[in-house]
Amino acid sequence: MRLQLASWPEVEAYLKQSKGIMMPIGSTEQHGPTGLIGTDAITVETIAWRTGEMLDALVGPTISVGMAHHHMEFPGSMTLKPSTLVAVIRDYVQSLASHGFERFLFVNGHGGNVPTIGSAFYEIYQDQRQAHGAGAAELRCRVVNWWDGPSVKALSDELFGDRQGSHATPSEVSVAAFAYPGHIKHARLDPPLAPSGRFYDARDYRRRFPDGRIGSDPSKASEAHGKRLTNAAAADLADCYRQFLAEV
Amino acid sequence: MRLQLASWPEVEAYLKQSKGIMMPIGSTEQHGPTGLIGTDAITVETIAWRTGEMLDALVGPTISVGMAHHHMEFPGSMTLKPSTLVAVIRDYVQSLASHGFERFLFVNGHGGNVPTIGSAFYEIYQDQRQAHGAGAAELRCRVVNWWDGPSVKALSDELFGDRQGSHATPSEVSVAAFAYPGHIKHARLDPPLAPSGRFYDARDYRRRFPDGRIGSDPSKASEAHGKRLTNAAAADLADCYRQFLAEV
Amino acid sequence: MRLQLASWPEVEAYLKQSKGIMMPIGSTEQHGPTGLIGTDAITVETIAWRTGEMLDALVGPTISVGMAHHHMEFPGSMTLKPSTLVAVIRDYVQSLASHGFERFLFVNGHGGNVPTIGSAFYEIYQDQRQAHGAGAAELRCRVVNWWDGPSVKALSDELFGDRQGSHATPSEVSVAAFAYPGHIKHARLDPPLAPSGRFYDARDYRRRFPDGRIGSDPSKASEAHGKRLTNAAAADLADCYRQFLAEV
Amino acid sequence: MRLQLASWPEVEAYLKQSKGIMMPIGSTEQHGPTGLIGTDAITVETIAWRTGEMLDALVGPTISVGMAHHHMEFPGSMTLKPSTLVAVIRDYVQSLASHGFERFLFVNGHGGNVPTIGSAFYEIYQDQRQAHGAGAAELRCRVVNWWDGPSVKALSDELFGDRQGSHATPSEVSVAAFAYPGHIKHARLDPPLAPSGRFYDARDYRRRFPDGRIGSDPSKASEAHGKRLTNAAAADLADCYRQFLAEV
Amino acid sequence: MRLQLASWPEVEAYLKQSKGIMMPIGSTEQHGPTGLIGTDAITVETIAWRTGEMLDALVGPTISVGMAHHHMEFPGSMTLKPSTLVAVIRDYVQSLASHGFERFLFVNGHGGNVPTIGSAFYEIYQDQRQAHGAGAAELRCRVVNWWDGPSVKALSDELFGDRQGSHATPSEVSVAAFAYPGHIKHARLDPPLAPSGRFYDARDYRRRFPDGRIGSDPSKASEAHGKRLTNAAAADLADCYRQFLAEV
Amino acid sequence: MRLQLASWPEVEAYLKQSKGIMMPIGSTEQHGPTGLIGTDAITVETIAWRTGEMLDALVGPTISVGMAHHHMEFPGSMTLKPSTLVAVIRDYVQSLASHGFERFLFVNGHGGNVPTIGSAFYEIYQDQRQAHGAGAAELRCRVVNWWDGPSVKALSDELFGDRQGSHATPSEVSVAAFAYPGHIKHARLDPPLAPSGRFYDARDYRRRFPDGRIGSDPSKASEAHGKRLTNAAAADLADCYRQFLAEV
Repeated sequence: MRLQLASWPEVEAYLKQSKGIMMPIGSTEQHGPTGLIGTDAITVETIAWRTGEMLDALVGPTISVGMAHHHMEFPGSMTLKPSTLVAVIRDYVQSLASHGFERFLFVNGHGGNVPTIGSAFYEIYQDQRQAHGAGAAELRCRVVNWWDGPSVKALSDELFGDRQGSHATPSEVSVAAFAYPGHIKHARLDPPLAPSGRFYDARDYRRRFPDGRIGSDPSKASEAHGKRLTNAAAADLADCYRQFLAEV
Repeated sequence: MRLQLASWPEVEAYLKQSKGIMMPIGSTEQHGPTGLIGTDAITVETIAWRTGEMLDALVGPTISVGMAHHHMEFPGSMTLKPSTLVAVIRDYVQSLASHGFERFLFVNGHGGNVPTIGSAFYEIYQDQRQAHGAGAAELRCRVVNWWDGPSVKALSDELFGDRQGSHATPSEVSVAAFAYPGHIKHARLDPPLAPSGRFYDARDYRRRFPDGRIGSDPSKASEAHGKRLTNAAAADLADCYRQFLAEV
Repeated sequence: MRLQLASWPEVEAYLKQSKGIMMPIGSTEQHGPTGLIGTDAITVETIAWRTGEMLDALVGPTISVGMAHHHMEFPGSMTLKPSTLVAVIRDYVQSLASHGFERFLFVNGHGGNVPTIGSAFYEIYQDQRQAHGAGAAELRCRVVNWWDGPSVKALSDELFGDRQGSHATPSEVSVAAFAYPGHIKHARLDPPLAPSGRFYDARDYRRRFPDGRIGSDPSKASEAHGKRLTNAAAADLADCYRQFLAEV
Repeated sequence: MRLQLASWPEVEAYLKQSKGIMMPIGSTEQHGPTGLIGTDAITVETIAWRTGEMLDALVGPTISVGMAHHHMEFPGSMTLKPSTLVAVIRDYVQSLASHGFERFLFVNGHGGNVPTIGSAFYEIYQDQRQAHGAGAAELRCRVVNWWDGPSVKALSDELFGDRQGSHATPSEVSVAAFAYPGHIKHARLDPPLAPSGRFYDARDYRRRFPDGRIGSDPSKASEAHGKRLTNAAAADLADCYRQFLAEV
Repeated sequence: MRLQLASWPEVEAYLKQSKGIMMPIGSTEQHGPTGLIGTDAITVETIAWRTGEMLDALVGPTISVGMAHHHMEFPGSMTLKPSTLVAVIRDYVQSLASHGFERFLFVNGHGGNVPTIGSAFYEIYQDQRQAHGAGAAELRCRVVNWWDGPSVKALSDELFGDRQGSHATPSEVSVAAFAYPGHIKHARLDPPLAPSGRFYDARDYRRRFPDGRIGSDPSKASEAHGKRLTNAAAADLADCYRQFLAEV
Repeated sequence: MRLQLASWPEVEAYLKQSKGIMMPIGSTEQHGPTGLIGTDAITVETIAWRTGEMLDALVGPTISVGMAHHHMEFPGSMTLKPSTLVAVIRDYVQSLASHGFERFLFVNGHGGNVPTIGSAFYEIYQDQRQAHGAGAAELRCRVVNWWDGPSVKALSDELFGDRQGSHATPSEVSVAAFAYPGHIKHARLDPPLAPSGRFYDARDYRRRFPDGRIGSDPSKASEAHGKRLTNAAAADLADCYRQFLAEV
């Protein structure tokens, strides 16, 4: 169930059964010459909504813009300052915690978000401790990257092997293609396999990876692959969420 | 064109033609017993995407959670602190301004956002002045509520008259119904026409408007009405955006 | 009674009778070639003090500098960042709330303050909810522009008609002239009636309104008009304050 | 000249002659059973305005509410958080610096403001350095307490000797009495000379100084003394301001 | 060379040779019944100072208190809020960057710091871009955990095998013992090997790990092991730093 | 006892005997051509650790980087923004207060820290009041400069007389020399006695005091003097701390 498509009495009823919710968090940033700028938000929405249906679990509104400073030399990329993203995550969690939610599984679509999400969780725990003391509800926040589950990882390896890379990957482009058929762009990828390596700030990124891709060959992407990857990722996420709720 | 569905080379090309963009901003909050929690985000997306197609104009990612403190006594409602929302709007605009965008039309779906959006614009102008001095690009930010255009206003009056009210209105419920057919809930509205009046904080709101509606009778909503309202609002928005870009 | 001219035992006694207070909020910004930079603070002080005497109601210290970014291309104009103004309003209200005040009527003298005041009220309600939970005192904050009351509006129309405009108006110049006789400047106004229209940032403002006035002809101002306007505005404010305190 | 009573063309003309301005900063806090809550703002206004007239120097709007946490157990006292006060001082200075002002003499009426004013000056210098680099205008900020000048100090000693104390002093009560004749309250002071000593937070303050005074006997205050003290302090301030402007 | 033990002319001379610096960052938190609260700061200082001597490289002042919210149920533990730690790292880097330093290798002693350090780096890059634009110096920030180098990892495995665990490890206790001989405490460890597993907030941590250790048996620690580990870690760090400076 | 060298059970035991702790706070800034950049942190650590041993009192981790904006034109100097330093002090105190500490004596080594430390104390008291209300533990924070005690002051006068000055003084250089024998630099001081006077921002400081010293002749410093000064300062600090704990 998507929170956005529920009414408040439905949420009231849900809370009698479960204190858990999934929170998709993506990014709005270049994904190479063929990939969609919204890829990271689209992938996590697609997967989390599917898992939500499978488990009858609530899925919150997607955080569409994340921490993507390093992509800012490519037109259309957007970023929040880390402090803004911390505030957004904190406000989302505190809003929902005030209604009784206690377990928050952030389903992440962008590696660059990970440190800031981690900072936000600590900030939330600390605020909770300071504001409510010993008697406060014990909130639990966890983040999982959609591509890290065992099934989806195996499937990516099988489908793309060493053409996968780490940005504008055929996996993520496939999932976005499955979600928005016909939107992936046609463009020559030169070289077909993008360079890899460490980078620092936005200028450094653009200099090392001139068309935006890192180590990937997204020409291998397809809607059909996207469908299989979505299903695999949704199954992995379902396992993860069930385990998260079951933890004592 | 939705930014999320574009590639970075497409945005690069767009910027050679236009410095303008529409930015949908909604809210995630109760909309009475029948309305969707995501109504305000859904309405502005639906309308802005349509206008974007009509004008071949870019539409940024939706800000889905806004300033909705006063709805927080209803399960599922979410809110950003005003300072967080200011930071989000500032980061969105500054990200896009760094690529060369200069005119930002925020398409708003929630009255409670208006003061904070206004604060954010001043903060953006002031930062711009301080950071870049006399030579800075002149950014222009403007906000328009989707329900304020002449055609959509006339149509709402015609369709709903004094059943419209000001929260969980049949207009907004209709647009959401058109966007997500079959999702509007069935529930008894008692009284059919909700009470009206001024309110202060969240507890005060709940006490005065026990089921969340203000002055409205959303039983009058329908998908068919939603379609007509969407078209009217999109036409109004197109006029407004054209005029905004044409201003010297 | 002005808070600044009271002693603490007097405030202690007052709080046994009333939980209400008026809070003047103005601005320090150019008011055209003839108007005083302090006009917006002077007008609200003058009016609120008068109403305070009429009703034996407490009036807090004036916030003299507001949100006036758009006037910053004119020497002597001052502005707070919106985030600073939010913090100031929050600290004022929280200070007084800690003594038992619960109803805060902000008497505003500057249109540019309105969005930020609105943001501040939401921030205050949210902080109150978060810090004190369900048992917190219910604070009520409201803002009223001194020129919006029915009597003062009618009188302005009668006295100035279409020479009123929206900045450096003959009304506000008159009230300031009444408060500080002899201080209004002599300067040629060219054209006599200033241009009108929408504006964006500070540079845009100065370009469109080169001497600072918008749509007004302040040569119509006089101390005598100021006295009548002050009395009318104070009467309107008294009605508004009484109604505010009487609200259940 | 008071900035609030000037027009923008007058400020433009002034800046061709001088880059200096005086900034009164006070507090809104209990001053014992007889003193006015606004004492610290009233004293600095009265003195700075007088000096301003003597020297034809500009005086900015008064910061009326300062850092007065330790007085918060007495009804009517108000305080800004230190971070808010830093932001206010920074915004005041940056506003005026953008017009060309470079030397800011803060005329202070409250000991509790001193650390935060000092913090603010450093914050301003650091921001200036960071925002504008080597080419930035060199701002100079200095604070002077009105009671610290040689003439006013000698006069206080002569008039009040060991009845002066350090809070709700006969000196400050006298200056306020001179500014607002007839407003000083009549109340029994018991003991006539208040206790002295170190204190920590607000509760500690109230416990040690139950009627709010520290070490003072304000029954010695009078309007006549206030007049002499005001003149002495204004003369001291004039010397200080002249020396400040003359510094290379 | 330790920055704290240098004079400013020495730093001036150093900058003609190198733009690099190592920045130790630790934590002040419980390390089980036998370990020192300062372990994480002590280990990184000890190792970075040694590497600094080996390479004639500058080492900045240690950040002694980090992000340790999860240890706060154990007396003596200290933590910065993530936002504070971001500000500290930013101010350290910006201070040094203003002198010409460009490459900052943070030598980290505490896993809990990692997300916040990552957030800080992005914040620094973004500020740099915003404040200085295209012409800004390109700063490079990187973090390395002292226990992650190949030699020290191999040695830890060899010395402690599955007694290592992840908090209050025999490795870190050994390095601290080597740095402060005689200070490791004698206490019974029960059970000898502490439990392992995931944890959320501070209360959750204490409940799962009642004496503070995670998965470790620090009774295996010794000064002799500490000496070998320090040497191995310093050699690893030297390799890492050299490679970092050599990167194009 | 140094907190960093204690275990958590030791701190738990300590808290049964005492609620007090000493907190060294220094700076990382130029100290003239011969002095160490870390002088202000080294002096306070050396003295506070000694006093801690004398009294069996706990000493927290040193704040090594303080507010030193005015030294930033000398390579190697570092500074926190005042707002960062306030946050650091607040987080240190709140961390320790959550374990039961109530009396915090900050042992300060740098005059430039004093205003910001004062701001921080007020911020801490205000947060405490707001978060915990009437029932909150009463925290007491106090700051003492190591050079202000009666014995150390007399000894400085005796040893250095008018060669002492106010920055890069022979006293502080001596204490650092005693702490780190052999590290004081050899450099010609020209003129031997540095100039004195008021200063504003960093550029102004460097212009007036070209080698960084103010009014001092650090060639008079020696390790032997440092030993005597350390002992005198530690004895003064012990008296101060005992008195602080004994205050009702």
